[in-house]
Amino acid sequence: MNTPLKIAIAGLGTVGSGTLQLLQANADLIAARCGRPVRVTAVADQVKNKDRGVSFDGISWYDDAEAMVANADADVVVELIGGAHGVAKRIVEAALARKRHVVTANKAMLAHHGLALAQVAESGGVTLAYEAAVAGGIPIIKAMREGLVANRISRVSGILNGTCNYILSTMRATGRDFGDVLREAQELGYAEADPAFDIDGVDAAHKLAILAAVAFGTRVDFGAVSVEGIRNVTATDIQYADEFGYRIKLLGIAECADGTMSLRVSPCLITPDMPLAAVDGVFNAIVAEGDFVGRSVYEGRGAGARPTASAVVADIADIAMGRRVPTFGVPVAALRQLAVRPLDARVGASYVRLAVVDRPGVFADIATAFRDESVSMESVLQRGRNANANVNVVIVTHESEDAALIRALQRLQNNAAVIEPPHMMRIETLQ
Amino acid sequence: MNTPLKIAIAGLGTVGSGTLQLLQANADLIAARCGRPVRVTAVADQVKNKDRGVSFDGISWYDDAEAMVANADADVVVELIGGAHGVAKRIVEAALARKRHVVTANKAMLAHHGLALAQVAESGGVTLAYEAAVAGGIPIIKAMREGLVANRISRVSGILNGTCNYILSTMRATGRDFGDVLREAQELGYAEADPAFDIDGVDAAHKLAILAAVAFGTRVDFGAVSVEGIRNVTATDIQYADEFGYRIKLLGIAECADGTMSLRVSPCLITPDMPLAAVDGVFNAIVAEGDFVGRSVYEGRGAGARPTASAVVADIADIAMGRRVPTFGVPVAALRQLAVRPLDARVGASYVRLAVVDRPGVFADIATAFRDESVSMESVLQRGRNANANVNVVIVTHESEDAALIRALQRLQNNAAVIEPPHMMRIETLQ
Repeated sequence: MNTPLKIAIAGLGTVGSGTLQLLQANADLIAARCGRPVRVTAVADQVKNKDRGVSFDGISWYDDAEAMVANADADVVVELIGGAHGVAKRIVEAALARKRHVVTANKAMLAHHGLALAQVAESGGVTLAYEAAVAGGIPIIKAMREGLVANRISRVSGILNGTCNYILSTMRATGRDFGDVLREAQELGYAEADPAFDIDGVDAAHKLAILAAVAFGTRVDFGAVSVEGIRNVTATDIQYADEFGYRIKLLGIAECADGTMSLRVSPCLITPDMPLAAVDGVFNAIVAEGDFVGRSVYEGRGAGARPTASAVVADIADIAMGRRVPTFGVPVAALRQLAVRPLDARVGASYVRLAVVDRPGVFADIATAFRDESVSMESVLQRGRNANANVNVVIVTHESEDAALIRALQRLQNNAAVIEPPHMMRIETLQ
Repeated sequence: MNTPLKIAIAGLGTVGSGTLQLLQANADLIAARCGRPVRVTAVADQVKNKDRGVSFDGISWYDDAEAMVANADADVVVELIGGAHGVAKRIVEAALARKRHVVTANKAMLAHHGLALAQVAESGGVTLAYEAAVAGGIPIIKAMREGLVANRISRVSGILNGTCNYILSTMRATGRDFGDVLREAQELGYAEADPAFDIDGVDAAHKLAILAAVAFGTRVDFGAVSVEGIRNVTATDIQYADEFGYRIKLLGIAECADGTMSLRVSPCLITPDMPLAAVDGVFNAIVAEGDFVGRSVYEGRGAGARPTASAVVADIADIAMGRRVPTFGVPVAALRQLAVRPLDARVGASYVRLAVVDRPGVFADIATAFRDESVSMESVLQRGRNANANVNVVIVTHESEDAALIRALQRLQNNAAVIEPPHMMRIETLQ
């Protein structure tokens, strides 16, 4: 039998335990496919007394992940602790410096420190792998970096956060409002007790920053991502969007053209015939557009112990087989730094909802503001007033520059009859 | 600069020319990602005087592909001639025997001779790569063999033939009949002058045989695939399926359970909420189900010069980077040979259309035949007679063994009132 590949796992939470379960359950299969056994020699976690459904025979236990990295007999350190800047980053740096390969699911760390860590890995001649960091079980990093290697990628877009997608899908299916569905998602374990990272779009933005680096061969730049979450999406918006023939999805969209790039995470309106429109619940999906391959779509479970473990072990198998690829597709020195196009330079259609007092002249004010900024309306919908004599005016614009629409909405915000900040969402026509 | 990887391309038809175009158009990008230039040193085709939109500077031309393989200075032979048994197979064998890596898009050759060719590649320590053979630009072979490496795959199903999918999608969208739409597809270049390979399901069966080998770690076995094409699907069937809430798709389905496997290509009814139901036109899509990853879906262009070239060059990049994987995921000696479950052992619902003479007692005969074979009906639809006093009786069955339903239909075929062979299609509930 060939030399086993020795693995040390830092962090035995959901994903860490799932990875250990997978490596034990499918050990024979993995050994056959890797041409050698994959053996866990050490694990580190602060909580020892807990049933994880796995055997710890022959595995050294460390309470301290840093001590494990310093002392364990391992070829690969698997970092599943999480967090952008703390112990996770320290052990990844230490492992790479000791010329150990690193496999991680840590999107926050990569979004913030991916470039520096890739440099350390490259200098040491070891692998820094992170399939599990983006879209859980979907092998999207491999697809982009190897499967589509021949293509100039112009756009990557996707549903990158299962929590948000579950909330938006459930709001649409039930007509219930955001806060109500969020509470239910928390009870079901689909949303964290502190849901901010997910619902404010930060988690999706981490993943988009990583995807963009791989797709465009650029330095990971989390600061380049414009981020808007789903807190302000109401049941009313979902209902109006439906009436106009759209679904609302939290999308991450990365575009590259003319030597500039645009990275944004925000709730968007898309038509039901788009591949992403049918992706409901906790599923993730990514659409990549390349100059030769055209459009390709990847869908699967974006989170959870077992799908994420599947991605972690795929990275381990690449290491076991000696398959190498630069961290972000090309050597660090060849990664580009592209100018970031401002978000409001986009040209496209938008959805706008204005809550206004229903009195004469308000509609004329709205129409005037749009006309003065040369934003033309494709559709307008106004319903009977509610108990407070307020109405929603909902507008779908023709293609226009976002900057012009934003100026029109700023004018209206100063109008006393407009009683809430205007709700604006982009309509995206990704093919 | 590192040593260039030298490529010889056999066959400059659509895909060969597309591959050459891609290697020239994206040469810089490919060199950066591969860490070395990829250089075409030789090409072989019988037709020289033809504008292929590429430069032949520095490329040796051979009229004879076998002469090219014997004499050209190349690390990799790219076989894009096609055909299961002829010159394509001879040059692949010759190239592998000379310890040249081989990249091919030839699904027929792999379905028939994949095992023997993998053995030759393995003995020579060279790569036999075939991403382009299945589902065009979709990197499904890489996804299955590397991305999902940690999973026991229980089922792979997919829309594997763009021609059939285009014909069925168009029949549904327009209500036109098979022959009519086929003629249009031929005019548009979506179907060959001799369309038999596509519309009889043989092309999809080649791809399914390859996918199953990779998914289950089995010897490629084209003979194990039950094949039925779409010639007998009528506009009437599509309309009835719609009324019952189904779409008709030509699916390839490979299942593995309890040490046996089942491989079938046939027109199937699926519900609109299934991922494959929304895949229309010339697109391909594949659903893979693994024990840890769950369901994952891959969609993209399944044919055409540019998407197929994207897959060919992905294989070339793996070779350029020295990334290796056994041809079918594990060494040839480790490939299993599974017993094949007979097709009629399936248990599931079916769609049946019977063209009958509309006279008293016919319906009772049908009901009796079903009852005697213990096949119960979920829905029955009968419409007013046509000019010949014939009617269609359409039945959706409850779950039952296909063998029982087939026995019931055989009884009815002997009934003088049943004027056409019964039309039966399986209803598939892939999740």
